Amino acid sequence: MRQSELFTRTRREAPKDETSKNAELLVRGGFTEKIMAGVYALLPLGLRAHQKIEAIIRDEMNAFGGQEILMPSLHPKENWEKTGRWGTYDSLFRFLSYYSKIEYALGPTHEEIVVPLVQKQNLSYKDFPVAVYQIQTKFRDEKRAKSGLLRGREFSMKDLYSFHTSEEDLDRYYERAKEAYRKIFQRVGLGHVTYVTFASGGSFSKYSHEFQTLTMAGEDVIYICDKCDVAVNREILEDVGKSCPECKNTSLREEKAVEVGNVFKLKTKYSSPFGLKFKDEKGEEKEVIMGCYGIGLTRLLGTIAEVHHDDKGLVWPESVAPFRVHLIRLGEDEGVRKVADEAYEELQKKGIEVLYDDRDASAGEKLNDADLLGMPYRVVVSVKTIEKKSVEVKKRDEMDARLRKLSDVVQECL
Amino acid sequence: MRQSELFTRTRREAPKDETSKNAELLVRGGFTEKIMAGVYALLPLGLRAHQKIEAIIRDEMNAFGGQEILMPSLHPKENWEKTGRWGTYDSLFRFLSYYSKIEYALGPTHEEIVVPLVQKQNLSYKDFPVAVYQIQTKFRDEKRAKSGLLRGREFSMKDLYSFHTSEEDLDRYYERAKEAYRKIFQRVGLGHVTYVTFASGGSFSKYSHEFQTLTMAGEDVIYICDKCDVAVNREILEDVGKSCPECKNTSLREEKAVEVGNVFKLKTKYSSPFGLKFKDEKGEEKEVIMGCYGIGLTRLLGTIAEVHHDDKGLVWPESVAPFRVHLIRLGEDEGVRKVADEAYEELQKKGIEVLYDDRDASAGEKLNDADLLGMPYRVVVSVKTIEKKSVEVKKRDEMDARLRKLSDVVQECL
Repeated sequence: MRQSELFTRTRREAPKDETSKNAELLVRGGFTEKIMAGVYALLPLGLRAHQKIEAIIRDEMNAFGGQEILMPSLHPKENWEKTGRWGTYDSLFRFLSYYSKIEYALGPTHEEIVVPLVQKQNLSYKDFPVAVYQIQTKFRDEKRAKSGLLRGREFSMKDLYSFHTSEEDLDRYYERAKEAYRKIFQRVGLGHVTYVTFASGGSFSKYSHEFQTLTMAGEDVIYICDKCDVAVNREILEDVGKSCPECKNTSLREEKAVEVGNVFKLKTKYSSPFGLKFKDEKGEEKEVIMGCYGIGLTRLLGTIAEVHHDDKGLVWPESVAPFRVHLIRLGEDEGVRKVADEAYEELQKKGIEVLYDDRDASAGEKLNDADLLGMPYRVVVSVKTIEKKSVEVKKRDEMDARLRKLSDVVQECL
Repeated sequence: MRQSELFTRTRREAPKDETSKNAELLVRGGFTEKIMAGVYALLPLGLRAHQKIEAIIRDEMNAFGGQEILMPSLHPKENWEKTGRWGTYDSLFRFLSYYSKIEYALGPTHEEIVVPLVQKQNLSYKDFPVAVYQIQTKFRDEKRAKSGLLRGREFSMKDLYSFHTSEEDLDRYYERAKEAYRKIFQRVGLGHVTYVTFASGGSFSKYSHEFQTLTMAGEDVIYICDKCDVAVNREILEDVGKSCPECKNTSLREEKAVEVGNVFKLKTKYSSPFGLKFKDEKGEEKEVIMGCYGIGLTRLLGTIAEVHHDDKGLVWPESVAPFRVHLIRLGEDEGVRKVADEAYEELQKKGIEVLYDDRDASAGEKLNDADLLGMPYRVVVSVKTIEKKSVEVKKRDEMDARLRKLSDVVQECL
């Protein structure tokens, strides 16, 4: 894409009301725009990163048998009454509509919808396990929205629900889900700072597990066992005797973190109120056993910004970068224009996604913007580089640029 | 995909409360499920069709310079007060939240968000025209939801907003948008029954244009000029003297139709209340001129079902079919299994999307389901076909099946 055609503008200053690093950088770079507290719009560059995260998650969910669906945000009151959460769910948006005179909840999670949905399919024991997921917008009436994209009132989420005929089958599936989650966080560039963290399992299971990513911007505190590479959250630290639940190690390291995902054995907590049952081999009716598995995509975008930046701007992991290459033309020289245009064609011909800074702006402005926007490869064409029949290439996390032939750069960026 | 793994089930009977053909067929086929009046979930087959429609629209929007963004559904009250629509917009969901004590609107359209968003970019006259679009969920508090997917309270929509420095530029862009819309309706299989229809332009323009698709399920009545292939909607029929606005022909044909898209010259209607201005070449401030362009995707899905079905079920156009081929194994014979499994591999290897009916069910049930689900190509493997070293192929809209070699069928389905 030609940057001259991009309608967003970078800003030198952070908006005064943004105190978190992720929002500061994402707003300054024009990836996102704040609409009001806890509510953001994704602009072209931010949406591209979001779509890449989406594709990675979709890929891993499909790989372990998830079937993609799309459930609505408007939920019937009666479903939430059935589970007893209409009046008790913290941060549930609920309202009486003015025209249709119906009471709705705005979905913050979808157990109340997915259970009756699966129930309508009249499944037999042979049809299990079943796993359905969606990538969809969630709403939570947070008393205080904060931390930029880390805690919003409206955000995108992937939620998967699994259905089983036995606890053993849920246990097996749950372990596979944890494996899929590990892969996702690795693929989006957070694997090295993300810990499987023991959390409370509620009244139905001993533990659930959170995926916690280390960052000073996180609201959570976790206690890491460096022997097992797992952690415990603050909520259950006392319950586990301040020791690692796996090796009983008591020298745990305290860190701040943000919860980017969680997996939870619901068992019959939601199948029971709706009467979601199956007939087993003997024709006996039994309750369906469930698990649920969430990842916040908006939050992931914010977390990636928190983890991957330096004092000049963002440093996108290659897998989720809006564009792989930021091609920069310095100066108005005809020869430079020609070579830069050719480089743009050449890179795109190889299927490489390029943001081409073809604007009439100063070298300083362009290079500062490249640092702020943080694409993995910066390729510069200038009078200096064309004299040497080369272009200048620098990865965003490298100190120094290198002069290379365009064909070599294309190979490197592939 | 193996049909034995699909968690949805077809139903013999239509749900009693579904009186529209689109909802009846889409619910019976397991493409969609009703959650409550005007609110549906998309199940795997329905979501696949929706994603194909999405891809076609995205493709055409990008092709004429649209930049994709994603705006939120929670809107600040003050924005809607600024345009005077907080209390007057028919079917606006608005509510005071319980926890955050903020008054919100749930976005039924996005002028109130996109105008201040573009305003924040501080664009100069050189940066125009600008066009941004999103594919996003909309909410409308309809007094009565009806007609299945044709009029819901929650639905997906593509809305594009264009920004110009002159009316002439808007006029040019508007004609290009109409051209892009024609292509979209052709590509999704509705071109032959969709008419550009003159509608009221409101207080700012003489006309706007709707895209109306002929179907008995439509709530609108239009008057077609067969000479010009355009139509007039009922609202302005008197104003145009019951004649074609293009050729003045007065023998217009009355038809029922559903509005699948519209294009509207907003001019300064929304830029004015927000003070969205630009500085021209002389440094003078002028108001930005706008257009808006909508297509309802959920409605399009329902309309395609209304237009493309017969008494046995759906007949998906190839471009939006959830799968291109429905491969059906008849009987449990080992040889049949082997050939059917091979055909599944072979078709997929060529990149053809296949729904493989590998279930242990009767021939009648499988063939009835294939008709109901309506994939473009039905390929049957049975004892009869393997005796002739062939498979049986039938397009959904053909009367008779043909025996062919698998390799020929693969070629035909490509």
